[in-house]
Amino acid sequence: MKSRLLSFTLATLVLIATPICTAAQKSRDVKAMAAIRTVLQEQSAAWNRGDLEGYMAGYHNSPNTEFVGGDRITHGWQAVLDQYKKRYDTREKMGTLTFSDLEITVLSKDAALVLGRWRLTRAKDQPHGTFTLLFRKTADGWRIVHDHSSSA
Amino acid sequence: MKSRLLSFTLATLVLIATPICTAAQKSRDVKAMAAIRTVLQEQSAAWNRGDLEGYMAGYHNSPNTEFVGGDRITHGWQAVLDQYKKRYDTREKMGTLTFSDLEITVLSKDAALVLGRWRLTRAKDQPHGTFTLLFRKTADGWRIVHDHSSSA
Repeated sequence: MKSRLLSFTLATLVLIATPICTAAQKSRDVKAMAAIRTVLQEQSAAWNRGDLEGYMAGYHNSPNTEFVGGDRITHGWQAVLDQYKKRYDTREKMGTLTFSDLEITVLSKDAALVLGRWRLTRAKDQPHGTFTLLFRKTADGWRIVHDHSSSA
Repeated sequence: MKSRLLSFTLATLVLIATPICTAAQKSRDVKAMAAIRTVLQEQSAAWNRGDLEGYMAGYHNSPNTEFVGGDRITHGWQAVLDQYKKRYDTREKMGTLTFSDLEITVLSKDAALVLGRWRLTRAKDQPHGTFTLLFRKTADGWRIVHDHSSSA
């Protein structure tokens, strides 16, 4: 009798859980995508007021955070910030940053891939290119842990 | 009595399931990493015998597969193959491909990110750079669905 009750309980749990899980997953993905868009909007807003530390708040503050571009792999949040500071040491060099063509793929409850385009509008030029970002859901929210950026 | 039995059953299931899941996850990740390394080894072996179709077997044969480089985003397995065929139309241009410094992060049961370096050893030059790959576990096994590659 007990084993019958157990089988029935398990079967019922699976039947109830499957549609709940699918709906919960969709809702979870929609929330993740909104949170990720907000992080990117806050990053470009910070950049456009000349606030590199604010921009870097979008990256996970961890020694494992990676920035990849050309032949170079930079390890660690601080090293990535230092590189940005060196490369964009004046407001003119920073220009105005825009992200576009965002394509967000939620991979799991705590991972998402983002493909997009970046553009700097500056007085004399408009450097631009593509990026692939891996976001992870950290204790601080969704943050970039891997950035592979290219320029035209 | 029934509700007590249910609570007890659920608590027992959670207690038993947690360490089993952790061990199963580790074993799953180790298997995924080995399968991904094999795909990359088969890709470079195919390249080095001048077999671009064989190389492309490492990519998921889907219109959603993406190749990103510089300012260009190429959508679809066939378009990626066409691009490779155009760029590497002689055995000399293909040279000898090596992948190195692979860093594989399993993100879920069906997703993994791979960072690495590529190098072509050719008669006159040695182009090289970095790549970020997203692998998904497909019906055919682990396959690349997103490749962002850069050169020095």
